This record gives sequence, C-alpha cells and structure tokens, in this order.
Amino acid sequence: MAILEVTQRDAVTHLTMNSPERLNALSDEMLAALQETLDQLADDPTCRVITLSGEGKAFCAGHDLRQMQAMRQNEDAGAAGFADLFARCTNVMTRIQTMPQPVIAQIHGIATAAGCQLVATCDMAVAAEGTRFGVNGVNIGLFCSTPMVALSRNIAPKKAFEMLTTGDFISAERAEELGLINRVVAPEDLAKETAALADQIAGKLGAAVKIGKRAFYEQLGMPTQEAYDYTGQIMVENLGYGDTQEGMQAFIEKRAPDWKQ
Amino acid sequence: MAILEVTQRDAVTHLTMNSPERLNALSDEMLAALQETLDQLADDPTCRVITLSGEGKAFCAGHDLRQMQAMRQNEDAGAAGFADLFARCTNVMTRIQTMPQPVIAQIHGIATAAGCQLVATCDMAVAAEGTRFGVNGVNIGLFCSTPMVALSRNIAPKKAFEMLTTGDFISAERAEELGLINRVVAPEDLAKETAALADQIAGKLGAAVKIGKRAFYEQLGMPTQEAYDYTGQIMVENLGYGDTQEGMQAFIEKRAPDWKQ
Amino acid sequence: MAILEVTQRDAVTHLTMNSPERLNALSDEMLAALQETLDQLADDPTCRVITLSGEGKAFCAGHDLRQMQAMRQNEDAGAAGFADLFARCTNVMTRIQTMPQPVIAQIHGIATAAGCQLVATCDMAVAAEGTRFGVNGVNIGLFCSTPMVALSRNIAPKKAFEMLTTGDFISAERAEELGLINRVVAPEDLAKETAALADQIAGKLGAAVKIGKRAFYEQLGMPTQEAYDYTGQIMVENLGYGDTQEGMQAFIEKRAPDWKQ
Repeated sequence: MAILEVTQRDAVTHLTMNSPERLNALSDEMLAALQETLDQLADDPTCRVITLSGEGKAFCAGHDLRQMQAMRQNEDAGAAGFADLFARCTNVMTRIQTMPQPVIAQIHGIATAAGCQLVATCDMAVAAEGTRFGVNGVNIGLFCSTPMVALSRNIAPKKAFEMLTTGDFISAERAEELGLINRVVAPEDLAKETAALADQIAGKLGAAVKIGKRAFYEQLGMPTQEAYDYTGQIMVENLGYGDTQEGMQAFIEKRAPDWKQ
Repeated sequence: MAILEVTQRDAVTHLTMNSPERLNALSDEMLAALQETLDQLADDPTCRVITLSGEGKAFCAGHDLRQMQAMRQNEDAGAAGFADLFARCTNVMTRIQTMPQPVIAQIHGIATAAGCQLVATCDMAVAAEGTRFGVNGVNIGLFCSTPMVALSRNIAPKKAFEMLTTGDFISAERAEELGLINRVVAPEDLAKETAALADQIAGKLGAAVKIGKRAFYEQLGMPTQEAYDYTGQIMVENLGYGDTQEGMQAFIEKRAPDWKQ
Repeated sequence: MAILEVTQRDAVTHLTMNSPERLNALSDEMLAALQETLDQLADDPTCRVITLSGEGKAFCAGHDLRQMQAMRQNEDAGAAGFADLFARCTNVMTRIQTMPQPVIAQIHGIATAAGCQLVATCDMAVAAEGTRFGVNGVNIGLFCSTPMVALSRNIAPKKAFEMLTTGDFISAERAEELGLINRVVAPEDLAKETAALADQIAGKLGAAVKIGKRAFYEQLGMPTQEAYDYTGQIMVENLGYGDTQEGMQAFIEKRAPDWKQ
C-alpha cells in the first residue's frame, strides 16, 4: 500500500496518510509523497477540494525522530540534513496554502508537533471528539519552532506560548474555541461530516473558490490599503468570468445559475 | 427621503441607510451619500460619536447587483466601472477608520457580503439577537475578496476561510464570540443599547478619543518597537492637552474634572 | 523593604512589586527596579522562569500620576520628561519579551492602564477570580495609547477598541476568553497555581525554552515564508544541543532523558 493513498469521490480528492505504525510521521517518504501528490493535484481540473486524514490511531505525530537521529551519523552531525528536512517540510506546508483547491484536515487521535502544524496549515480542519493537539517538542528538548509559525498565525499569542512551553495537550473543543480548527464532531461522524463540508465547497463555482483562496493568503500579509487595492483587482477579474455573470443574473432573477464549469 | 438620513442627538450623529427595498445595498448613491456625509462629519466639532443603522428588514446586503450587471453593457464589459466601484467602496471603508469619531454599527436582520465588510470595518458593532452575518458571494460565483480584507483582520483565519468558502451565515452570538462584533442585545433594545454605548464614549474627553482612535489604526500595522515609539509620541501630545492635565489632577484629588471641551 | 522584592525558589525567580500604597504604580523607582532586576536575571543561569506579582490590593494600576503631574513644573511643561518616561516604560516591556526566561504574570485585584499593558506583555498570565482589567486612561482624558500596543497584539481589534474608548473593566473570565490571560484560578490558589505553571516550564530543557522564546517573538512579525526560513535555522541550532540529542534518543527508547543542563 502506498504511504499516501489517494481516492477520488466526485470532485473531492481524499488523501490518507498511511504509515500507522509510525503514527503517520512526516518521514522523508511521507513528505515526498505529499509534495508530489499535491503538485499533481494542483493541475488537476477534476479536483475541487482536498481532504486529508491519517490511517490508524493518530492523524499525525510530527517528524520522524528515528530518521532525524540517523542523520547525526553524517560528517556534519546532521546539520545539512536537518536544514534540508525543514526546507522540505516548509515546502509541503506552503504548498497546501498555494494549492488552488481548499485543503481540509480530517483529524482524530493526536496531532502533535509538525502534525499540529499540518492542522494549523490546512485551510480548514474538522476533528473528532477526543482528539488531542499539542506542540510538545519541548518535552524532549526540541522546541516546536517551525510548528509555531503556523500555530501563532491561528491562535492568540499567550495561548500559543503556553502550548509551546508547557507541551500540554489541548482538547478538540478547546482547539475549536482558540481558532485552531473549525468543527468538532462525533468520532463516528468524522468522515461523513468532513466529506459534507468538502462537498458543499465543491458545489460552488470552482474558479471563484480558486481565485478567492489565492487572494485570502496573499492579502493577509499586506497592509490594509494595499490589501484593498489588490483584492479590488481580484474582484474585477472574478467579475469577468462568464459563470459569475450568470450567477449574478440568476440571483437577480431568483433562479438557479446555469454554470458551464 | 434621503438615501442616508442624518439625525443628531446631543453629540451623537446617527446615520440611517434608507433604501429598504434594496436591503440598503451599497449602490452608487448609497456609497456617495456615505462618503459625503462622513467627510462632512469629520470636520464637525459637535459630532463626537457616529452610529450607523439600516432601515427596513436588513442592515445591509452588500453591493447593488443590478447596477453592477448594468455596467457590463459598457464597451469594456464593465471592467473600468467595477474597478471604480471597488475604489469608491474602499474609500468609504477606510474613511470610517480615519474618521476622528468612533463609528458604531447598529445591526439587525442581515449583514452580508460588503454589508458584513461594513460591520467588520466599523470601530464597534452592536447587533440584535437574530441577526445573521455572511460573506456569501461565493454562492453566486463572486468570492467576497474585498470583504475578506476587513473580515480576516477581525476573526481567526480558519473561521474567516470557512465563512468565505461555504457562504454559510453565522448568528449574532457566534459573531460576538469570533470577535466580529462587540455585543448582542434583544431586538427591542438595539437602538437604546447602541445609543447608550455611543453616549458613554461621547462623555469622554473628545480630543483624547480622537487622538486615540487615530493611533489605534496607525499602530496596528507597525512592528512592535515602531508602534511603541509612535504611541509614546502620541502620549506626549495627549498629555499636552489642558483638559488632560485637569483630568489627571482631578483624579489625584478624587473629584470630577472640570473640562473646557 | 525594596520596591521590587526578589525571591528564588529552585529555578524560579519570583518578583513582587512592593509599593502597595500606590497600587504598585510604574513609578520612576519601580521602572528602574524592574529594568535593573530583569537585566541581571537575563544573565543568571540559575533562573529559568520568572513570575511577577504585586503586593497589596492590586497587581498594578499603571503609571504614577503624581510623578507625571510634577513633571509639568519643568520649563517645557513636562514634554521631555514624559517622552523619557514612555521610553523607559517601553524598555521594560520589550525587555520582558527579550528575556531568555518566560515571564508569567500572577495577577489579582486590578490591572489597569500600563498595569494592563504589563499583563499583556508578559509571556503568560494567571489571574485570580475577581481580578478586573482595564485600559481606562480615557476616563481622565489620557487615552491608553502605549498600553494598546500590547493589548491589540493580544485580543481582537473590536474588543480592544471597546476597552480603550469606554474605559470599562473586564473580568478575569472575560480576559481569558479574549486571549489576554491564560488561566483564571481561585484567589487562594493563585500563588500555588502560578508556581506550578512556572515549575512545569522550569522542568523543561532550559536551552530549548530559551531559543524557543526568542524565536517566538522574532517570527511573529515576519511574513510567513521568512518566518519559516528563520525558524528552520532555529530548529537546526536546537538539534545541535547535546541534551536535545539525548532527549530525542530517550523518547525513541521510551525512557527518561539524562540531561546535563
């Protein structure tokens, strides 16, 4: 079985990290599979929404510590290997946000360290009751500095600082309150509820979702006036789509749009 | 009746968007009236706080789709008209935050798309129970890219992304939890509670509120050290006001200040 | 008795602001004592976590208004003195975040104006039930412009704007919800719970907490990609610690780490 299983259901592509014996650690193989698959899906017009889950007991437990320790055997005690690892991991994370399709994390069990970073990085996240989230590298002397980039852009600074320095887990309910995830559902409904959210978005005009997602992350980092200048141009571009013209007309005429997409 | 009614009660100016048959859409006329009125009020020393509501069933339902569709008849299929529309809308939004007076949205019914942007842009917002908020342009194929500039500067990114891509409405209670608005009140108390909040702020030293509001938005976009350097200068300027000197002395002497303002 | 009492318990240094008759105002003396003590502790390898409380009825009531009014007797009506005061206050605030050790506020009574800024600036904060927080300078005509730098980097903008312009207090429970503090505890448990949190963090690998805290604030102000490049380098540096290598190996071997620190 592949380390990353890809299944297609209508316009939704579901990815399953499939390395349960390692709690779906972001090993060299897992990162490579994620990068390759995402790069392919980015150009796949049949894919409108992506969902991401983990096989076995956990969503994802972060980096593969055994592989990292093995790098220490190198002449430079692993420095170049580590730098390369974080560059590859960052590429996967930023790829998620530059994908034209929304990426929804479907989370159960635990999401720790870089696994929690993965949750924070996805556009949206649905978790089963009982899921626990942590950036607990501090417990083994390795502060979760890269995960905190994503974490601290999702939740309030004091809450992020507490998680990072105590290594404590938080519940799914708490993660929702803090803004780390979108929804908490019963474990038996996790797949169904995540699929329903994906289907809902897949039913929108794909070109509008695509231009909107791109604009979302681009404008977030801009000063307000620059963000308005930029998104104003995005709106003009969006208004140029034939399907958008039809969508607006249909709304005025109180009928369903007849989209060509 | 004017498309934007202006009423003055002591130091509080109340604006009522008055185009109920269009759900107070931000039409060319409404944007022009808002811009002109705000520009005038900015120089009006008798106005200390502004409140903004909508006549009829809704606070504001966003842009005027009929006017936008009509622009498509132009030679360029509307492109220049659309760009101009978003520039004018952005000017109104940024004018709200550059006003010397606090602007409080008084919201009922629905606040959707650019109407939700208007809520997010006001300095504060009070909503009636039962109000629904949405950035639902995605439902007609027009992603709410300009509204998201204001929205994503008020609520957590995953919550904003969900609203933008699902088009789902959220309740007033949820909007308060997420940080989009300040308070939820019973519908029958909406006008009274908003007026009470406005009166409370109108009772403060106007010059202090004015310099403070300006500093609030200026410093938000600065790196922390720069923000401290800037606000330190603002404090020195504020301390130079005679009324502030009197306010501090009155506090030390445990008496009410005798302000000249 | 010193205006700032310093007590050491194992690796935790507890600072007590000791000017209860002035509600621990940030007077010239208090600011100088905080600056000097923090500068010393920054180089103290026996100190791993710092906690900060106030003696008497309040945590801290902000600047010392009597000292500020006295500055008005100067030839320039106080302008240079005020500018110097805010520079010194800013130095204490930024020193807290550049300290190698986490700084935890232990709060009771009231935390107002620059006292609320102090809470917002500490890395974490634990408050007793019944504590009230406010940035209420507006009530005496002096808008809390410097406190708002810290406040608006901790809580949602509309909530910050409301506190700043109304001068209203919020409860400890509300402060926790908004993200201003981490935890609310019973008054009789305040010292114990704060100490327990400090002890928990003091039990982590100090070098990891130190590099992590530095990276936390550095990356917060960076664009995402830059933040990832920077924290990637931080991770490589952290991985180079002998104790981190041991911590990772111990985790793999499911045993407690044997740290040299």
